[in-house]
Amino acid sequence: MEKKFSVGLAGGAVTNVLFAKDIKDLSNALSSYGENVFWVFDTNSARLFSSLPEKRIVLESGEVNKNMKSLEAIISSALSFSSARDTRFIAFGGGVVCDMTALASSLYMRGTRLTLVPTTLLCMVDASVGGKTAIDYMGGKNLVGTFYPADDVIISVDTLRTLPEKEFRCGLGEVIKHAFLSEDSTLFNFLSENRDRIMRKEKAALEELVYLSLSVKCSFIEKDPLEKKGIRSYLNLGHTFAHALESMAGYKISHGEAVAWGLGRALEASTFMGLVSSSFAESGISLLKSYGYDMDYRIGRGDWISFAKALMKDKKKSMGCVKFVLLSGFGHPQLMSLDNTLVQKLCIESARVKF
Amino acid sequence: MEKKFSVGLAGGAVTNVLFAKDIKDLSNALSSYGENVFWVFDTNSARLFSSLPEKRIVLESGEVNKNMKSLEAIISSALSFSSARDTRFIAFGGGVVCDMTALASSLYMRGTRLTLVPTTLLCMVDASVGGKTAIDYMGGKNLVGTFYPADDVIISVDTLRTLPEKEFRCGLGEVIKHAFLSEDSTLFNFLSENRDRIMRKEKAALEELVYLSLSVKCSFIEKDPLEKKGIRSYLNLGHTFAHALESMAGYKISHGEAVAWGLGRALEASTFMGLVSSSFAESGISLLKSYGYDMDYRIGRGDWISFAKALMKDKKKSMGCVKFVLLSGFGHPQLMSLDNTLVQKLCIESARVKF
Repeated sequence: MEKKFSVGLAGGAVTNVLFAKDIKDLSNALSSYGENVFWVFDTNSARLFSSLPEKRIVLESGEVNKNMKSLEAIISSALSFSSARDTRFIAFGGGVVCDMTALASSLYMRGTRLTLVPTTLLCMVDASVGGKTAIDYMGGKNLVGTFYPADDVIISVDTLRTLPEKEFRCGLGEVIKHAFLSEDSTLFNFLSENRDRIMRKEKAALEELVYLSLSVKCSFIEKDPLEKKGIRSYLNLGHTFAHALESMAGYKISHGEAVAWGLGRALEASTFMGLVSSSFAESGISLLKSYGYDMDYRIGRGDWISFAKALMKDKKKSMGCVKFVLLSGFGHPQLMSLDNTLVQKLCIESARVKF
Repeated sequence: MEKKFSVGLAGGAVTNVLFAKDIKDLSNALSSYGENVFWVFDTNSARLFSSLPEKRIVLESGEVNKNMKSLEAIISSALSFSSARDTRFIAFGGGVVCDMTALASSLYMRGTRLTLVPTTLLCMVDASVGGKTAIDYMGGKNLVGTFYPADDVIISVDTLRTLPEKEFRCGLGEVIKHAFLSEDSTLFNFLSENRDRIMRKEKAALEELVYLSLSVKCSFIEKDPLEKKGIRSYLNLGHTFAHALESMAGYKISHGEAVAWGLGRALEASTFMGLVSSSFAESGISLLKSYGYDMDYRIGRGDWISFAKALMKDKKKSMGCVKFVLLSGFGHPQLMSLDNTLVQKLCIESARVKF
């Protein structure tokens, strides 16, 4: 087990990010917590265990189950095992499992100890570090949640071997987003130069990828742990478009695919607003394409109303006005309002303008 | 409006405690927040308004409604008024309203702004400052909650004028508890010397009472905002007994009455354990009696099993063992385990031993 770094978060909390050498190393680390633990799996992640620990709950997988019912199921199950405030909750799974377990952990007797073991690339580079917990509520994505950083995040890239290709590419959307948010171009270059090694899931390449990506994310969240200064909201680059697309599609499009698409729209918007050259946007879009994302997709005109309605539900509102994260270069994000007509031009097939 | 003090809490959060000169002063302060607000009342506190603000929810009053259903009702109602993350939640009511509104505020889009206006003495001196939010869950009192300090707590002792006598004495139980937790005897002496002024609800006396009581509470919570060092748990003096009694009685005994009773048991336990003289315990019990508390009540032998079961649900467990807060003098609390037989002697009528 190698401790890669510690991240200082809200209220003096510190998250230790640990990289397991292999599955055996991961298993040893988890055993070392002892008996006073409570495990949360979903039907996917539970399959990675030949025999599951006794004090556990296995949830139905999928974003559609990221709801109050599952949250209550976690809390009730923990209670049924007489878990106390000093019990450690261990989430073993992707973003849905980690977000919900962390929320339950923050609520259970006002907060238990918490370890996250992300088993998807998306969760490793996005959901696991930073303390954001959530469930969806009444059609609003992540509408109910808390800030509650995990004590430990244990990453084993070996768990990515069994990840379906589609899931894997989903996480890559966030990684590419981080490449644009980094002031230096290390991650961007790594992605450009190591496409094949990454897509082959070569272990060393994956470890480097996750490490570089998390480093970028952590540099933002450490400056603004509670998302009160506007700095942390820059991590939402592409997400305002993405969430609206997911909501419009009834969450049938995966988060990572939606983020890649939203990132493309944000890059184009940045060009339209004169913040970056069109070649800057094109280099990003072509990197996304090289990883297999459909960057040419646009919504139909008939879907505009439901898309726009979902846009208006975005949490980054100020004085009733939705703010988008745009870029004026690598590592230089900013929040801006966008004109309705421009958003239509960017998102609707028939209104599309080549830039 | 007079700002009495600010309390530093978890994550650098600060709660401003403000005292309103009168109802008009309170009303002006609340108007100054503008239109981007969402109000929570219960059927009792709503009666204090001749016309209620538009963006509001009125909950059924009572501890029995401090549950997931009410919490969801608050969140859904806020959503129905298109409240955003920059909306201010305003709780106007007693401990149940304040605890639930604060929990909803902490969860809604991961945290809105929050003002508490406590309208009961219990809530003014106990629930309003310190950031503990909660609902009851599956028979466990305050089992689900977060730490989320309010930005502002606005106190107007005028709201206590309409408080039923029984409710008022409930709050006094917590005040007397604070008197024992204070290293100096200012509050204890104030309570002993001003009984009649306090019971007549003389305004100046009430303001002094609330101010002194809150000062003691704040000295504890500032040292341990997240209840991780054991210091803050000292504020639970009497509460382990009290919660078990409330749970056993199906919450038909009010919290304040239960706390006064539990305080008596904790003082007696401290004597039995040789931490304080019996005269120290007696002085406390006689102060509680002078304010009208039934300090002679004991549970029946037939209720022991349900009482003991409720005791075991206490959150202050370590290695499976319940810890009680005892005293070795004014302002000198400590956590101790108690022998089963001793707890029976203290709590069961027929096992009772005079000390």
